[in-house]
Amino acid sequence: MSFLHYSIADFDEMEKHFRTKFVNSLSGFKSVNLVGSKGFDGVENLAIFSQVFHIGSNPAALGMILRPATVPRNTLTNIEQSKHFTINHIHPEIVQMAHQTSARYDKLVSEFKEVGLTSWYSEACTAPYVEESRIKIGLRLVERYNVKYNDTILLIGEILECFVPENILREDGFLDIHEAETVTVASIDAYHKTEKIERLSYAKANKLLTVLDKKLF
Amino acid sequence: MSFLHYSIADFDEMEKHFRTKFVNSLSGFKSVNLVGSKGFDGVENLAIFSQVFHIGSNPAALGMILRPATVPRNTLTNIEQSKHFTINHIHPEIVQMAHQTSARYDKLVSEFKEVGLTSWYSEACTAPYVEESRIKIGLRLVERYNVKYNDTILLIGEILECFVPENILREDGFLDIHEAETVTVASIDAYHKTEKIERLSYAKANKLLTVLDKKLF
Repeated sequence: MSFLHYSIADFDEMEKHFRTKFVNSLSGFKSVNLVGSKGFDGVENLAIFSQVFHIGSNPAALGMILRPATVPRNTLTNIEQSKHFTINHIHPEIVQMAHQTSARYDKLVSEFKEVGLTSWYSEACTAPYVEESRIKIGLRLVERYNVKYNDTILLIGEILECFVPENILREDGFLDIHEAETVTVASIDAYHKTEKIERLSYAKANKLLTVLDKKLF
Repeated sequence: MSFLHYSIADFDEMEKHFRTKFVNSLSGFKSVNLVGSKGFDGVENLAIFSQVFHIGSNPAALGMILRPATVPRNTLTNIEQSKHFTINHIHPEIVQMAHQTSARYDKLVSEFKEVGLTSWYSEACTAPYVEESRIKIGLRLVERYNVKYNDTILLIGEILECFVPENILREDGFLDIHEAETVTVASIDAYHKTEKIERLSYAKANKLLTVLDKKLF
């Protein structure tokens, strides 16, 4: 296998769009979710994010990175106003609609209507869910951090509730998101399905790992 | 499709390990990487992380969430001492070795030796790379944020350099990490390969998306 080497000086010299696609490929496969929100103007907003990540199980919370001056600005405004937002998984049938939410629509336009997805509400969360999504999470904004290095914004959301398909819950708490056909993204636009390798036992020093039983995966 | 609903009160009542696996499943498929570091004691450390994410292309930077009091403590100490760390992709042949780095080893023990992976050094980065990894990234610590909500830590690393297989670079800057067999993880222990769906064009309002040419994916 032959390798290419890029230094920090090489990044500076890359053409802008080339660099965006290149650097976005480096962190590995990313989660990709639709974030639903609604602010004081009452307009439902929906935006695709590949920077949502696990931040804690107890209390249950997710983190999300937002760019300050680009597409997700409406999302940020809405979340800061209402304190609520939703995170909705994407499966192959809705990938193109989900991707289309990254277009720049006017603040008064609902991406739900523009791309053809359906908003849905629960009792506990004021932000709109994506009815078509198979895994839906409702969150409450609890903290915001401004990353000085590049002006991105970290939001911490406490999970208020979630909706998951009954058939994907395994007896040890694992949710088989592969069975729910949750997709993953590479770089900014390359959508992938998944294929199972294995679930591995909790690792301990001086103990061999075991592959978990098929019933759990 | 039948759905289960869980509220914040239900999370509180879950058994601890059940909750960990459940909540870790909610964010979707995650990047999973090996983080290499070495502090003042000179002991090479290697730890698996599923909370590495893209934070910016220009300057090129990655973010990483660390738990304060558990497995990654050696990683944090080393990074704060040397200011350098590496992020290394995982492919199927090294999944079990990578997972085994999550066991609690003594600070004076090198996970490289314990799990059977090989350390390798470049000129620009003082932290050890994983020789077996196909995509290797060297970083310099630029910022740290303490998340008050749950005591996790956000580190921002500026990318100093990277090594990528020549055959995965596409002409628009996209790196075909599927071809490099980079794996992704669900929850805390479920490793997956990927299967391509499609790359989609840059989304614009009132314009139909197109699927990018096969040469680019």
